[in-house]
Amino acid sequence: MTAREDLATPAVVIDLAVLERNIARMAQVAEAAGARLRPHAKTHKCPEIGRMQIAAGASGLSLAKTSEAEVFVDAGFDDIFVAYPVVGKGKPERLLALHDRCRLAVGVDSVAGAQALGAPFAAAGRTLDVLLKVDCGLHRVGVAPEAAAGIASRIAGLPGLSLRGVFTHAGHAYHEVSPEGVASVGRAEGVTLAETAARIREAGPSVSEVSVGSTPSARYAIGAAGVTECRPGNYVFHDASQVSLRTGTIEDCAMTIEATVVSVPAADRAVVDAGSKTLSSDALRPRAGGHGFLVGRTSRIARLSEEHGVIDVAAGERFTVGERVSIVPNHACVVTNLHDRIHAVRDGKVEAVWRVAARGCVE
Amino acid sequence: MTAREDLATPAVVIDLAVLERNIARMAQVAEAAGARLRPHAKTHKCPEIGRMQIAAGASGLSLAKTSEAEVFVDAGFDDIFVAYPVVGKGKPERLLALHDRCRLAVGVDSVAGAQALGAPFAAAGRTLDVLLKVDCGLHRVGVAPEAAAGIASRIAGLPGLSLRGVFTHAGHAYHEVSPEGVASVGRAEGVTLAETAARIREAGPSVSEVSVGSTPSARYAIGAAGVTECRPGNYVFHDASQVSLRTGTIEDCAMTIEATVVSVPAADRAVVDAGSKTLSSDALRPRAGGHGFLVGRTSRIARLSEEHGVIDVAAGERFTVGERVSIVPNHACVVTNLHDRIHAVRDGKVEAVWRVAARGCVE
Repeated sequence: MTAREDLATPAVVIDLAVLERNIARMAQVAEAAGARLRPHAKTHKCPEIGRMQIAAGASGLSLAKTSEAEVFVDAGFDDIFVAYPVVGKGKPERLLALHDRCRLAVGVDSVAGAQALGAPFAAAGRTLDVLLKVDCGLHRVGVAPEAAAGIASRIAGLPGLSLRGVFTHAGHAYHEVSPEGVASVGRAEGVTLAETAARIREAGPSVSEVSVGSTPSARYAIGAAGVTECRPGNYVFHDASQVSLRTGTIEDCAMTIEATVVSVPAADRAVVDAGSKTLSSDALRPRAGGHGFLVGRTSRIARLSEEHGVIDVAAGERFTVGERVSIVPNHACVVTNLHDRIHAVRDGKVEAVWRVAARGCVE
Repeated sequence: MTAREDLATPAVVIDLAVLERNIARMAQVAEAAGARLRPHAKTHKCPEIGRMQIAAGASGLSLAKTSEAEVFVDAGFDDIFVAYPVVGKGKPERLLALHDRCRLAVGVDSVAGAQALGAPFAAAGRTLDVLLKVDCGLHRVGVAPEAAAGIASRIAGLPGLSLRGVFTHAGHAYHEVSPEGVASVGRAEGVTLAETAARIREAGPSVSEVSVGSTPSARYAIGAAGVTECRPGNYVFHDASQVSLRTGTIEDCAMTIEATVVSVPAADRAVVDAGSKTLSSDALRPRAGGHGFLVGRTSRIARLSEEHGVIDVAAGERFTVGERVSIVPNHACVVTNLHDRIHAVRDGKVEAVWRVAARGCVE
């Protein structure tokens, strides 16, 4: 078996023991709360890891895009939620084709979008389950909680659709600078969505799924009475942002980037062969601060260009040309999307090389 | 032929007329200066576009990584410069294999790195051409101009290597907020490198190639006496950063992203299906300001998540669910790297779909 230190760099390495522990822990959180776990597979994009999540008790997977769902259904997954308001030429027809092959649900957040989604299903005499996206404070997509009952009633009446439930995502937890702030966002996420579901039921439509999300907020949101499902993604790997948010520790980070020092042009500067093409340009959350953690070092990666990671060498540290380093990236989900393969390592040996099957699926 | 507006979104679209004009113009700049043009193919990563550049007079291509060079040699290109200080396990051996198949040169910036690079060439009784990277002010990799003669002399004496020349890259031009600042950086780039080459020659080693780079600085650096070669990359497409730097106009931007409005959750907010997985998180240069230009609109893309571009809707503008928009990205080179295919369009019709053959080549 190839040793980690023999991999050509840069290379994405997944520590299998940490991955397995992360999967088991989140499964326990969901089980203890009596809620289903439907992990967001965008973080890994690998059927192999999705199967580990299902084996640990996950009820199905969440994905963001139609093309990602196609890859996972091709790989044999049979219960998929496309947690995104799918709109656009050809997409409803592609979802109709997927509906033949799995238990499928899709997000909606507008009557116009839902109508277009339902049309080919109605024409085919079929019914697609939809979940209404509710904005619990991120202010990205989703209807305001106070508008949800009215819109849900209109969507529930559209041909070709059945309202399965509501969902939300507390992405604003990533901007909270204290664990107390994260917990507060998480608790509000669960309570807001459960209350919104109750108001929709009062207005008429039934709501069987009440689905919350996000790795930092999951453990807080999942406890709210009425929440039925949780969709965290990043927890399988964690990353420097989760460490900064104190959602996990550095020991909980399953993903590292193996890189080589290619240049030491000055005493206070060293350059590795991992730049934004390897690590992405995503900033550290909740506060910007370098481009990943160098394992076992205090020096920081101060700036990136496409193929260069420029290290500000800390006083007392030294790097040499040809030396190898490990980097915990700021944001693991986007790293996966930049690579064709990830290397699953145990005790320093590469046990498997997994193709990132849903990489680049933007449609 | 598929019409642009029938493409599934998000999709990367290249306007062929603009691409052809951009290629012709830079070829003219080089010809007028009496210098060779060796475009950096990292911007497009497509053999089809590389062939257009060669047909317009380019002497060869520049690439950043060994794996990219492998893709382009496989595609039939026969004169390649890997403009990067290549260091790392297995890389010198891979370059030796490439050396059988093309005229090859590789960057170096340290004696240790050069020694490792030369070793397998020396063992095989072969000689690899190298160019010494000189730092003309970016402070990324490269030796200081005043140290270049000494290091060049040591590298020129290493077994398995032949010093072909020197190269530099004025990436700091991207931080200049005025056209005068860009011009000044470009002129200094050319003069500094030519003077460094003269000092190396005085110390003994011959220097036949004096190679400058960067799209904003190219037209200024190429004019310096003694410069023999120029390596701009981005000019084939241009992007919002080149427009901001006034290196080109919006009409010179060959790359746009076709996207669909998926949600209009509030009067002042609309969301498109192109996020950082499509546009990257790279900031606008020289000053951050949104995530690309919406063609024909004054509204700006204020923030991105992986699959969402969140538009701050300007007063008097309106977006509707299902509407299509075109986006000029902040940084075209990194967009190419996120996509498997790009769509070559003329007069609104897709003439060709090009595979991004060297996408994801980080090694």
